Amino acid sequence: MLILVSNDDGVHSQGIRILADALRGMGDVYIIAPDRERSAASHALTLHKPLRLENYGGNIYSVNGTPTDCINLGVNGLLHRKPDLIVSGINRGGNLGDDVTYSGTVSAAFEGTLLGIPSFAISQVADDNYKFETAAKFALQLALMIKEQSLPADVLLNVNVPNLDITGIKGIKITRQGKRIYDKNAIIEKVDPRGKKYYWIGGSRLSWEEMEDSDFAAIEQDMISITPLRLDLTEYNAIKSLRNWEATLDEKMKAKVMI
Amino acid sequence: MLILVSNDDGVHSQGIRILADALRGMGDVYIIAPDRERSAASHALTLHKPLRLENYGGNIYSVNGTPTDCINLGVNGLLHRKPDLIVSGINRGGNLGDDVTYSGTVSAAFEGTLLGIPSFAISQVADDNYKFETAAKFALQLALMIKEQSLPADVLLNVNVPNLDITGIKGIKITRQGKRIYDKNAIIEKVDPRGKKYYWIGGSRLSWEEMEDSDFAAIEQDMISITPLRLDLTEYNAIKSLRNWEATLDEKMKAKVMI
Repeated sequence: MLILVSNDDGVHSQGIRILADALRGMGDVYIIAPDRERSAASHALTLHKPLRLENYGGNIYSVNGTPTDCINLGVNGLLHRKPDLIVSGINRGGNLGDDVTYSGTVSAAFEGTLLGIPSFAISQVADDNYKFETAAKFALQLALMIKEQSLPADVLLNVNVPNLDITGIKGIKITRQGKRIYDKNAIIEKVDPRGKKYYWIGGSRLSWEEMEDSDFAAIEQDMISITPLRLDLTEYNAIKSLRNWEATLDEKMKAKVMI
Repeated sequence: MLILVSNDDGVHSQGIRILADALRGMGDVYIIAPDRERSAASHALTLHKPLRLENYGGNIYSVNGTPTDCINLGVNGLLHRKPDLIVSGINRGGNLGDDVTYSGTVSAAFEGTLLGIPSFAISQVADDNYKFETAAKFALQLALMIKEQSLPADVLLNVNVPNLDITGIKGIKITRQGKRIYDKNAIIEKVDPRGKKYYWIGGSRLSWEEMEDSDFAAIEQDMISITPLRLDLTEYNAIKSLRNWEATLDEKMKAKVMI
């Protein structure tokens, strides 16, 4: 098996090395990851500057770009054949609820799935003292499971692991993406030494909607959360309700033409 | 009405100015957009450096960050109250199929919807000679429609406009997100004057899957495409099929603990 490992915390992060070590029993493992932290890079692609690959010995490479760039460059450039599996992580901190859309780690798995490769993202839910070994052990079990059972087409898995020793984990739960309650004070205004204002995006984002089966709820119960995510963002339920807009807008556009 | 306009082509792009002019009849229009082109920025947030707002006269501001930063800073920082509508565009070039997940323009509308504000993204499908006036006229009609009818919760609209005069537009179609057929030669390798390799992400991405009602199909028929997109990425269909993984993985984890 050929396994590609990436992340958004950067090639030198501890989480990615522990993850790669855990997966090495399954086959050839390549690390291709950003040269520095690219958290919250989302699914961004680097189109306006050329990318460089740097080797750090063995199968370890960095790219001066985003996690999505790493997957692209790995699959379409560096590797001699399509990998059998892509694993992104282990992320420093959870990727829960709406945060999955900001996450570079989740986006690397998203890109892998777009390229037709079974992919999952894995995150250790903590702010420090990360127990990466727990997530690494689970990543190996999950990788073996995916090898046996294969993933549904166009589906990636977003895995979040509570920050506990493996004996503390209460179980595994298939969940849905939770929903944050957004903080209105999410922008912090400061003044620089020259009297000019500047802003930090930050603020606390600690609460989420009560929702059965959400990723947040699983973590609160000390369970590993696995959320299947889709590539297709279409809201099919809205298509029907919007269909009556077609005629109305059509008429208005035609009236516009005649003016 | 308070309307916030953003994009990913930057504050100085022609498309955003024409869009803002078209919407000004409906209320107060603010432009808050990146200080330079940020195409393919996706839903990235800037967390590691402070952001600066710069005023270009009237209600026109730039931010040294991503489109998502602009919406955050606009809604939670600069504006005195929550805008009634967010419009992102007019993008230079289409945002069709899987490209919506890379797009900064679509992500600005995504962020607006996350913040509970009716939002749409609008793009002019062309490589040059953009007929922004067509998209601008349609943006106004759509904005009026949203004001009257309101959007379903947690749904944004992704609008793509063929590059034709308004008389050439054949109609309006509610569509679903199409699917690209990815090019295997998407990475271009070059050598710099010092003999070191570098790479461009690029390559042609011209084909897409035949799919009834897709955004691509509407554009091919010279129709305006409106795709409703969702915030929740959960693939609910996969939850059932993955539920039998829970017990198996649980057992394997328990076996691991005992080793």
